[in-house]
Amino acid sequence: SRSIDLAVIPGDGIGQEVVAEGLKVLSAVLAQDVKLETKEYDFGAKRYHATGETLTDADLDGLRRHDAILLGAIGDPSVPSGVLERGFLLKLRFAFDHHVNLRPSKLLPGVATPLAGQPEIDFVVVREGTEGPYTGNGGTIRKGTPHEVATEVSVNTAFGVERVVRDAFARAQARPRKKLTLVHKNNVLTFAGHLWTNVFDKVAKEYPEVTTDYIHVDAATIYLVTDPARFDVIVTDNLFGDIITDLAAAVSGGIGVAASGNINPSREFPSMFEPVHGSAPDIAGQGKADPSATVLSVALLLRHLGHDAEAARIEAAVSADLAERGALPARSTSQIGDALAARVAG
Amino acid sequence: SRSIDLAVIPGDGIGQEVVAEGLKVLSAVLAQDVKLETKEYDFGAKRYHATGETLTDADLDGLRRHDAILLGAIGDPSVPSGVLERGFLLKLRFAFDHHVNLRPSKLLPGVATPLAGQPEIDFVVVREGTEGPYTGNGGTIRKGTPHEVATEVSVNTAFGVERVVRDAFARAQARPRKKLTLVHKNNVLTFAGHLWTNVFDKVAKEYPEVTTDYIHVDAATIYLVTDPARFDVIVTDNLFGDIITDLAAAVSGGIGVAASGNINPSREFPSMFEPVHGSAPDIAGQGKADPSATVLSVALLLRHLGHDAEAARIEAAVSADLAERGALPARSTSQIGDALAARVAG
Ligand SMILES: CC(C)[C@H](C(=O)O)[C@@H](O)C(=O)O
Ligand SMILES: CC(C)[C@H](C(=O)O)[C@@H](O)C(=O)O
Repeated sequence: SRSIDLAVIPGDGIGQEVVAEGLKVLSAVLAQDVKLETKEYDFGAKRYHATGETLTDADLDGLRRHDAILLGAIGDPSVPSGVLERGFLLKLRFAFDHHVNLRPSKLLPGVATPLAGQPEIDFVVVREGTEGPYTGNGGTIRKGTPHEVATEVSVNTAFGVERVVRDAFARAQARPRKKLTLVHKNNVLTFAGHLWTNVFDKVAKEYPEVTTDYIHVDAATIYLVTDPARFDVIVTDNLFGDIITDLAAAVSGGIGVAASGNINPSREFPSMFEPVHGSAPDIAGQGKADPSATVLSVALLLRHLGHDAEAARIEAAVSADLAERGALPARSTSQIGDALAARVAG
Repeated sequence: SRSIDLAVIPGDGIGQEVVAEGLKVLSAVLAQDVKLETKEYDFGAKRYHATGETLTDADLDGLRRHDAILLGAIGDPSVPSGVLERGFLLKLRFAFDHHVNLRPSKLLPGVATPLAGQPEIDFVVVREGTEGPYTGNGGTIRKGTPHEVATEVSVNTAFGVERVVRDAFARAQARPRKKLTLVHKNNVLTFAGHLWTNVFDKVAKEYPEVTTDYIHVDAATIYLVTDPARFDVIVTDNLFGDIITDLAAAVSGGIGVAASGNINPSREFPSMFEPVHGSAPDIAGQGKADPSATVLSVALLLRHLGHDAEAARIEAAVSADLAERGALPARSTSQIGDALAARVAG
């Protein structure tokens, strides 16, 4: 469509700084062609401290009227662990049924990796976003006593697994290598493991051109550091996806360049795009944060909304900027944003 | 004590080959000083195919009379995923209450790592071994239908968490750096996360000399590849420990040298020592497997039984052998075993 109505959630820590650059680049790439409207929301630690609220039903009603959501980061050491994660980030993913958590990993030319020998890395993780151990099921009895028992229940449904597996097969089919790897731990988590494996094998029959394999999550971490080129598309459960995408980000240039999309492919609700890095309170407000991950998240957002050409221009700009970075003096967050905006406009 | 009565389970694949070398080195290091008795058990895929049995009550009665157990590997592609894992490996860990799953990671001189710049790596993971998502709790309804629901329940008790946390603090206290890191995902798995965090903080008060910190499991995978030197001792839950110790093995020289102990510190039941690598059916029977991980597991076994001097001799021998390996032509499994046996005897 010729207009984008965007909800913007800068959030906490470096979220504010990187989102400003994301919007700068977005405006530049859209120019006169697509009308951009934005509305800013004040979610995060500040609002929680002021009102005790993280994300209300009224907030959700407001957010759902937008075409998409751009988020910087939510989280601050002043808020107890879990409050904003469960009360905002996960609440939003569940409320808007963001079942496809998309996390591409590409080691761009000139970007440093902790791995020796600069391996080829170009894969996408399709992480399930609304089930598994993230549902909040479970509980505690005899809390604080020597007899405390705490449980966490991973919930997996054929419905939930099949839709994300189908999404992953479609993505694999559309890529040159057409390869899809299921990552799970089906030798230990046999109930969920059988469900994932059976659904995966069933859907595979509809995609004869896609090569498939299966590896355990523990072995996957080994391959990610010894042979990341073996991966093309990975589909996996919510928790395994959380773990391996941080590792994937680390080996492919760090969380400074790791983008993600929390996607509802049906478009029944707006999808949400955010850098993987989090609020990084230690460097907040100093202009030190790399906005590239946010800018690449904007590209994912544009692709989701059908603006493929603009998405490609942003990705090319980030790639070119990173390739030249080694030769330049250190730049601030907004200087990098300016450079990227100039590139996509030019 | 002046004698060791050892249960030996060669198992499947390369298990047979590496255990032979482990015993060769064990005999050599003990020589006349300690009497070694061994009894071999035939668990694994072959016995499962022949009898349908994985580990019976009578088997457990037999095994528990020994001082310790040395295992090669259990697992074969001819057996459905989960059968031997749940029916043998996990059954044994649970039956003998192996709640301390000890996995040291040390990058030895001359050993290749996939990480650039040969970082310093010398830490120990204390993985809980009898709780968490490994309990087999959970189930499936409407199996095979579009309405299937499969659950996995992570069970965590104050009793189970406290004993492994105490073990980890004691190990941290005994090491020069005296640093202990709790790895969990307490911002999402809040029930189990609070239990782990509270128990950890409580026990920490008894160890004022131990420096402590906490990191989420996803961030831990990043540090393992960008700054592994930050770790000294890690304590974590069963599943997180499974995942990060494979990654830890990968960065510190590969699973060819990763040893592990499934320990019952009370000695109420025999502890079990095994290489992390598994049965590797693709190279089985070819004399290609590196027995170093098994030999280092024998060192853990000796230390557990109080034979510290012999354990140290084995570790020094493996270290020296690995350091010289680059200069030597490739050797077979038994040639490496011979070399190590000669070193510990000499
Ligand atoms: C902050 C946390 C809830 C979140 C997750 O675990 O999904 C984060 O780690 C991520 O990967 O987006
Ligand atoms: C084989 C499997 C049951 C086992 C585990 O998950 O614990 C293995 O991966 C390990 O780490 O010892």
